[in-house]
Amino acid sequence: MTPAPEIEKRRRDIAALLPDLKADALLVASSANVRYLSGFDGSNGLILLMPGETHFFTDPRYAITAHQNIAGKVHVAKGPLVAAAAKVIQRKRLKRIGFEAGWTQYDAFERLQKALGRASSLVPVGRVIEERRMYKSPDEIDTIRRSVNLNSEAYAKVLKRIRPGVRELDIAAEIEYQMKMLGAEKPAFDTIVAAGAHAALPHAHPGSYRLTGNELLLVDMGAMLQGYCSDMTRTVHLGTPPKRIREMYNAVLEAQLAGIAAVRPGVTAGKIDVVTRRVLKQHGLDKAFVHSTGHGLGLEIHEAPRLGKKDPTKLAPGMAITIEPGVYLEGFAGIRIEDTVLVTETGCDVLTPSPKEFIVI
Amino acid sequence: MTPAPEIEKRRRDIAALLPDLKADALLVASSANVRYLSGFDGSNGLILLMPGETHFFTDPRYAITAHQNIAGKVHVAKGPLVAAAAKVIQRKRLKRIGFEAGWTQYDAFERLQKALGRASSLVPVGRVIEERRMYKSPDEIDTIRRSVNLNSEAYAKVLKRIRPGVRELDIAAEIEYQMKMLGAEKPAFDTIVAAGAHAALPHAHPGSYRLTGNELLLVDMGAMLQGYCSDMTRTVHLGTPPKRIREMYNAVLEAQLAGIAAVRPGVTAGKIDVVTRRVLKQHGLDKAFVHSTGHGLGLEIHEAPRLGKKDPTKLAPGMAITIEPGVYLEGFAGIRIEDTVLVTETGCDVLTPSPKEFIVI
Repeated sequence: MTPAPEIEKRRRDIAALLPDLKADALLVASSANVRYLSGFDGSNGLILLMPGETHFFTDPRYAITAHQNIAGKVHVAKGPLVAAAAKVIQRKRLKRIGFEAGWTQYDAFERLQKALGRASSLVPVGRVIEERRMYKSPDEIDTIRRSVNLNSEAYAKVLKRIRPGVRELDIAAEIEYQMKMLGAEKPAFDTIVAAGAHAALPHAHPGSYRLTGNELLLVDMGAMLQGYCSDMTRTVHLGTPPKRIREMYNAVLEAQLAGIAAVRPGVTAGKIDVVTRRVLKQHGLDKAFVHSTGHGLGLEIHEAPRLGKKDPTKLAPGMAITIEPGVYLEGFAGIRIEDTVLVTETGCDVLTPSPKEFIVI
Repeated sequence: MTPAPEIEKRRRDIAALLPDLKADALLVASSANVRYLSGFDGSNGLILLMPGETHFFTDPRYAITAHQNIAGKVHVAKGPLVAAAAKVIQRKRLKRIGFEAGWTQYDAFERLQKALGRASSLVPVGRVIEERRMYKSPDEIDTIRRSVNLNSEAYAKVLKRIRPGVRELDIAAEIEYQMKMLGAEKPAFDTIVAAGAHAALPHAHPGSYRLTGNELLLVDMGAMLQGYCSDMTRTVHLGTPPKRIREMYNAVLEAQLAGIAAVRPGVTAGKIDVVTRRVLKQHGLDKAFVHSTGHGLGLEIHEAPRLGKKDPTKLAPGMAITIEPGVYLEGFAGIRIEDTVLVTETGCDVLTPSPKEFIVI
């Protein structure tokens, strides 16, 4: 549970943005943003935030939890939450209501507009809360560290059980089981366990394929602990890897280490992507690197910044990001190495403790 | 994988609605609807559907899978998928584009509107695909049946391991592990395991609380198998249940059986809710029943119809729905009993095989 003073501070920080947004209040619809501003971890919550006052809306399933745990005025609504919010807006005669354009479905927008009529106007607002969420507090960093450690601990337990004859899905099921036994709420995303050429699909689903004694195995896993995500990819090999695979692995590792070495305050997120891509180009593998170098993480598994070449965000202390270059050769192999790192005053701290040398099983 | 002829049929059925929607094409953004119309199970897909022609958009992570598996024209886009769709709309000079108002974020709508300018207009469309999805095909029913059986099999395995000293989260982790080992893609939702008064929260998170020898235990679990969900709740008791708890259980079971008995073609979804609520009222427990009686399920865990008193949808053969009355007394107990049932020509078929007598452990 996020301590109440931290929630209060976040609310004040966001409320302080309202004048610039030319809004009297902000309707917060993103579930991660709702959790950030209230601690609520259910599936149906909405916040109306204004200076010094927060209204929280949910449905009857969460009535007890909300009344017990949410600071501010709690409204339990039977119908659409935006309809309940519209009533508060009308009662308080709020004129300009900011809403999260990236998290408000068109029909909710329309419903709100009809309910409010001409008395209030709706102002689309960009990802202002997400921008704040890039800068993690000491409490958040502590939780992310624990999430990362939990994830690596689950990996270490499962690594011992990887052997020929085991199915991809057995390994994925075991990973998620270990995470939960270690206290995770759930996996931060669907665990990827992909053997051989299957690993060439960056987002492969674990299947009933049984490992042979001689192939690559890519594992991408993350835990959610007290709302905060971790994210790690490791690629191991069953049996002696062929020369080509070993070369590919070394190239990806070199790119990943170069990316990490480039992380420091003031450098853009996009620059890190340029750095890893350049290393892979030297190995003739840049065309096989089909995604961006990484992403921020926190209450969501993918959040700002994006470590893609066009993101101009300057890295700053307190940002938690992944560095995860990979190469994918259709029908042959896929290799990715990913750590969660924390930007510090002088560079970065690699949070992920799991070893990165090429493990041969 | 859904067979290609079934996908083709679905596309034709939806395309046939376009004239009524006054649209030349429909942009499909809901991931369940995208899966319904393409088989795609990734996290980022968009479909532009028109008579005789389907365009599928995704990002490079899914390029290989999409090219291999998706029928129609596949577009791999690096930026926002709606921007790529706008280009196709312009090239084909489509005039009126329907979009899913309940699944299109306001910013995607705005982006699309800007990209298209005055050459095309955007037409908000309701849940027309969801309305079709209420009527399951024989293939879909078969998959739901297997999903329900898998879920009950996992429950039976875990039931044997419920005993004093075990934590709620141990049970939840074990349930999800067993589901996956039995072939589920993943849980259909976060498994609920709630002991004693904790069960009074209808959507409780499993915690580190250890079971004592004398309390209620509520388990709400569902699997996703080949895209299709199952959903079941059982409430058991450790030690001899007090009289009040036994009375409550019997009342909920009576309501649930009355709900099931009322299911037949032509009856409204809302009527089933009236029926279960009336039974609980006879026991003075209607105020403790804080949610609706059930919901459709299929590619999503909650889909149409909604078994709430206002839903006028007439039940029809091929609908898969849950019947799940529950009573929740804050600080005391929560009891819910839930089955997945299939509406048939003459009534319904209770798919869930797990027994419903009050199990005492």
